[in-house]
Amino acid sequence: MLSSDRFFSPNPQQKTAALDLYSSIQDLPIISPHGHVDPGLFVPPTIRLGNPIEVLIQPDHYILRMLVSQGITLDTLLAKDNPRAIWKLFADHFYLYRGTPSGLWLTHTLENIFGITEKLDSSSADRIFDRIEAVLAEPDFTPRALFQRMKIEVLATTDPVTSSLEHHKAIRQSGWSGRIIPTFRADDMLNLVATNWQENIRLLSTVSGIEIIDFRSFIAALEQRRSYFRSLGATATDTSMMVPETIMISPQEANAIFQRALKGKATMEDARCFSAQMVMEMARMSVEDGMVMQLHSGVLRNHNPEVFARFGSDMGFDIPIGSEFVNNLKPLLDRFGNHPKFTLILFTLDETMYSRELAPLAGAYPALRLGPPWWFHDSWNGMTRYFDQVMETAGLYNTVGFNDDTRSFLSIPARHDVWRRASANWLASLEVRRLIDHHDAEQMAYEMAVGLAKRAYHLEQ
Amino acid sequence: MLSSDRFFSPNPQQKTAALDLYSSIQDLPIISPHGHVDPGLFVPPTIRLGNPIEVLIQPDHYILRMLVSQGITLDTLLAKDNPRAIWKLFADHFYLYRGTPSGLWLTHTLENIFGITEKLDSSSADRIFDRIEAVLAEPDFTPRALFQRMKIEVLATTDPVTSSLEHHKAIRQSGWSGRIIPTFRADDMLNLVATNWQENIRLLSTVSGIEIIDFRSFIAALEQRRSYFRSLGATATDTSMMVPETIMISPQEANAIFQRALKGKATMEDARCFSAQMVMEMARMSVEDGMVMQLHSGVLRNHNPEVFARFGSDMGFDIPIGSEFVNNLKPLLDRFGNHPKFTLILFTLDETMYSRELAPLAGAYPALRLGPPWWFHDSWNGMTRYFDQVMETAGLYNTVGFNDDTRSFLSIPARHDVWRRASANWLASLEVRRLIDHHDAEQMAYEMAVGLAKRAYHLEQ
Amino acid sequence: MLSSDRFFSPNPQQKTAALDLYSSIQDLPIISPHGHVDPGLFVPPTIRLGNPIEVLIQPDHYILRMLVSQGITLDTLLAKDNPRAIWKLFADHFYLYRGTPSGLWLTHTLENIFGITEKLDSSSADRIFDRIEAVLAEPDFTPRALFQRMKIEVLATTDPVTSSLEHHKAIRQSGWSGRIIPTFRADDMLNLVATNWQENIRLLSTVSGIEIIDFRSFIAALEQRRSYFRSLGATATDTSMMVPETIMISPQEANAIFQRALKGKATMEDARCFSAQMVMEMARMSVEDGMVMQLHSGVLRNHNPEVFARFGSDMGFDIPIGSEFVNNLKPLLDRFGNHPKFTLILFTLDETMYSRELAPLAGAYPALRLGPPWWFHDSWNGMTRYFDQVMETAGLYNTVGFNDDTRSFLSIPARHDVWRRASANWLASLEVRRLIDHHDAEQMAYEMAVGLAKRAYHLEQ
Repeated sequence: MLSSDRFFSPNPQQKTAALDLYSSIQDLPIISPHGHVDPGLFVPPTIRLGNPIEVLIQPDHYILRMLVSQGITLDTLLAKDNPRAIWKLFADHFYLYRGTPSGLWLTHTLENIFGITEKLDSSSADRIFDRIEAVLAEPDFTPRALFQRMKIEVLATTDPVTSSLEHHKAIRQSGWSGRIIPTFRADDMLNLVATNWQENIRLLSTVSGIEIIDFRSFIAALEQRRSYFRSLGATATDTSMMVPETIMISPQEANAIFQRALKGKATMEDARCFSAQMVMEMARMSVEDGMVMQLHSGVLRNHNPEVFARFGSDMGFDIPIGSEFVNNLKPLLDRFGNHPKFTLILFTLDETMYSRELAPLAGAYPALRLGPPWWFHDSWNGMTRYFDQVMETAGLYNTVGFNDDTRSFLSIPARHDVWRRASANWLASLEVRRLIDHHDAEQMAYEMAVGLAKRAYHLEQ
Repeated sequence: MLSSDRFFSPNPQQKTAALDLYSSIQDLPIISPHGHVDPGLFVPPTIRLGNPIEVLIQPDHYILRMLVSQGITLDTLLAKDNPRAIWKLFADHFYLYRGTPSGLWLTHTLENIFGITEKLDSSSADRIFDRIEAVLAEPDFTPRALFQRMKIEVLATTDPVTSSLEHHKAIRQSGWSGRIIPTFRADDMLNLVATNWQENIRLLSTVSGIEIIDFRSFIAALEQRRSYFRSLGATATDTSMMVPETIMISPQEANAIFQRALKGKATMEDARCFSAQMVMEMARMSVEDGMVMQLHSGVLRNHNPEVFARFGSDMGFDIPIGSEFVNNLKPLLDRFGNHPKFTLILFTLDETMYSRELAPLAGAYPALRLGPPWWFHDSWNGMTRYFDQVMETAGLYNTVGFNDDTRSFLSIPARHDVWRRASANWLASLEVRRLIDHHDAEQMAYEMAVGLAKRAYHLEQ
Repeated sequence: MLSSDRFFSPNPQQKTAALDLYSSIQDLPIISPHGHVDPGLFVPPTIRLGNPIEVLIQPDHYILRMLVSQGITLDTLLAKDNPRAIWKLFADHFYLYRGTPSGLWLTHTLENIFGITEKLDSSSADRIFDRIEAVLAEPDFTPRALFQRMKIEVLATTDPVTSSLEHHKAIRQSGWSGRIIPTFRADDMLNLVATNWQENIRLLSTVSGIEIIDFRSFIAALEQRRSYFRSLGATATDTSMMVPETIMISPQEANAIFQRALKGKATMEDARCFSAQMVMEMARMSVEDGMVMQLHSGVLRNHNPEVFARFGSDMGFDIPIGSEFVNNLKPLLDRFGNHPKFTLILFTLDETMYSRELAPLAGAYPALRLGPPWWFHDSWNGMTRYFDQVMETAGLYNTVGFNDDTRSFLSIPARHDVWRRASANWLASLEVRRLIDHHDAEQMAYEMAVGLAKRAYHLEQ
């Protein structure tokens, strides 16, 4: 059973202060401005979630990768028949997750969503499986009902620019009050040498109703889509780049590259220039239409070719690489870094960026904000390192609160709870060291839980 | 009001040990071997310091950058009229500095220099402004009197090689006992492709009385200036390089580059070679004349072109970049690293260098010492990371104590106090974990506060 | 005198939990799967260890480098006459080791091996020297007796592939029960441009009985040696590379390079390709013969040319450099990363690799495991950083316990004791924060002390 003071420092003074701060934010609504939950879940009011394995194991690459690393194959884990056997295998190996965020999230979800307080291991596996199945079958265990129970105030999904956003439309039209908004993700349009790029461009032509024959019409089509996304509540865009490079080239040069790409003749250098130029262009559009821009970088996707060939993406083999922002972002910041209406939120998996590059940049440029610790660093220690290395230089108010960034709907409360506990514990450490007073700590705790995210992502309504 | 046990661990044993160690060093004189205070402040015995904004806000790029990052313009902040309105704006936004070193330094300065214990916010802004103004107008509130009150034993300034050091001379001739010494900074002479390099060389010719016609006379002029700086008490030089590269080239090659530069025909490659060679040459001169050599590297200066064009340097937009020492310094260490009379003190903003490169190098080469955590890392957490990542491998005795490195005279005590508290807390953590005994902890605390700096910078008199 | 609760958190709850966990592992046998102790020590049952300086100072480059860094010359320290004077000099400077692992290991060794509880300094130097000398002269103070007293269950040495392993054979033939096994180290064969490479190849021909005339026979000879090493108990290989690069080239290409090398005409590029290809080949052989593969990288050896020329290798001037694994290892992982029978254990001195590259890789690939914190990071803080940055993402069960990696036989217990204390303290911090329960903590403590190393290195017998 989860202890109510879990995570907090064992020092009695700090624990008391942390519990006090945590109690003031524990039940605040959840702001989820960046994530990957399927909006389709919320369309039919009575949709069911699937079996325990489909809900808790198979969509969670954090869970899968750890089992794979110890020799359990994806063939076994992704099988469709006999979910109880897979659950048993998982329970047999649940010791692998000791002290990991995946283990803690799962335990939290079992207890808070399913009411299970027994420890998961080989002996309890069957009982727990039965209990999860029973809860999943309960009449009020629908995504919409859970959304309300979880106190989600707003949930942003991530959607390709070519999406019709039919689920978002259907949710709005259904009259249900849950706020679920799309996020504009144009990545499929930015990599000229991806095998399906030309097809993506044709699709963009179709959905935008703008015939894309050159760079200018391509940009017009993107602008049309941004406008459409905004009409369904979107406030932000998201871009993922392996390297956060930015360049300023002329429209003529951009068009020359684009024309080569349309003819299937783009070079690797064209692709590099084009994506760097498109980051700039996305910033320009944000300056004009007010959408918040998010930039995620520094991941080598699908590192394992055998796994990718057999099972596709998001199987736990995306690996972080070294990063650099000071030179890479300079062209963009030269042009838009001081713009009062522009917000660019940066994310990194290279923690050496925190104190060296990102905190000094965000603590100076009006347009920059730092996203929360991302992915592998969305953990107790990852958050602690982030607070340690970012806050003194960037200042809390140049950060944006938390993103759960999850594909697993049921894990949302667990993830926000870790962030709120980590925030409370960090602020308590400042308070008991007399670096801030209690009044400041309380205000900061509220900002970290809710305020910063609402303001940074323009979600105040 | 500041708590006397601020910063220290909330663990009672560690706090007691930290307070005990801190009490033994709290009132020791301040050794300030590296900083940027204007020596002119100390020449006329009755000079005044200016209005509150001129004293506390406008010269402090740490303060300015945070306000700028939240959309307050430098136009507003640097205005000359209505200091009270700027102070009010600052107070309205003082929450931005919660948990930052800038906020803690300012609070310390308000309390210890101005006797203000009220918290700064919108409601107290006017009262505090009045109080600062009143104190600044007090007859004994002169830089010389403050220098004594602050118990500064020695203050090193940073001075261009072409400086006549008139203020230093005037201070000496005035008979005042305060020890203020120059530091030799030749950076203006080292970048061949800077627009004003030729002018700098002409100025060097003039002040040295040596006609600079080739590399040899250039070096002779520098040596003449070093000798002059030493005659006014200088014990150290300082060099800042974006990359800490060093090379060994022949005098003929050096001269060929120098001649091209004199004709305005130096290439970027010439500039790179020349500065790398000049780091070597500065080391050679230090070996000969005994001046301690400091090398700061890894900053991209004036990252924001708009701010630089309108407001110049030192406005908060100097951003750290990645660094490398093991290969870059090898030519220099090959030649001088084992020299018993040579001291090279290294500074970095790239904290990944601490455990990987700098601590192993400083823990082996007789000539090397590590400077304290610098600039963005001159903070509670920055110091803690430094102790954690440097001390086990380099050993305390290969470090050099503290540099306040400040442009803001009144902030000197606040900065040394953070260092002394951080030192005491770190040593207390070793003591309560039984890694050192109390006797050792006390000796180490003294070394960190005073001893190491005095010896490393040859300030023992 | 050493405190029994040294190292542990001063927080009473955490300390109690740490002591409890430590008491459960403190006296477990020592598994030493990677180190550099001379197997010759164990051949004659009554061999003596030498004088105090030969035993404790001269073979320990950690000790030497710190003294050198403060101006004491290797000439003085490595002198053969007057060990008492060197010991006195060491004692006079023992303050330099305050808070360093070297200081703590030495203090532990003096107390636990020699029964010395007095603090080492100038005044106690002579008494302690006498005591060490007396103990070294005791009849039962032999390496074999110490091996048993230290409870070493298995000790792996590191041996060149051309070694006849005569000491290992002699130990086996002597009937003594101590388990001492060789480790296969082929580094001398991998660097084509090393001056003695051709000689090494000839030596390999001789010892293997296989005439090496091409790449194929070279590989055959290596395979013969691997088989021979295994026959004497070896379970692992070790490879050290400055850069952990791997490539896949054809046997024809490999042979062409090899032929150029045999003729003394290999280029630097040949050497780079060859070593990258040989890492791949070593992996291929491990897949086939089941030996565990260790890869150490990221050190610039013999950084100080003057010291190297006069005193040779291992004098404290090997310095870490930046690293990269995600791209460098990709060819090898593409081929063998999912192999169920392959184990590749990675070591780094670049701590930025922990959270960014190594933990994500090891938490996904079945073949990968992470070695413990290495060399400069084999310290209290180094271990703490490793636990912090590795465990959440890699999971404990993708690590391999501890390596003492020492050349100094008597320091083995001290090093394992630091690891066991650090492990207990880390697990206690998880326990008191309720992230794991006591049952899990106890199992994890056992794994860290013994279990993981035994399984990863195939030492279960």
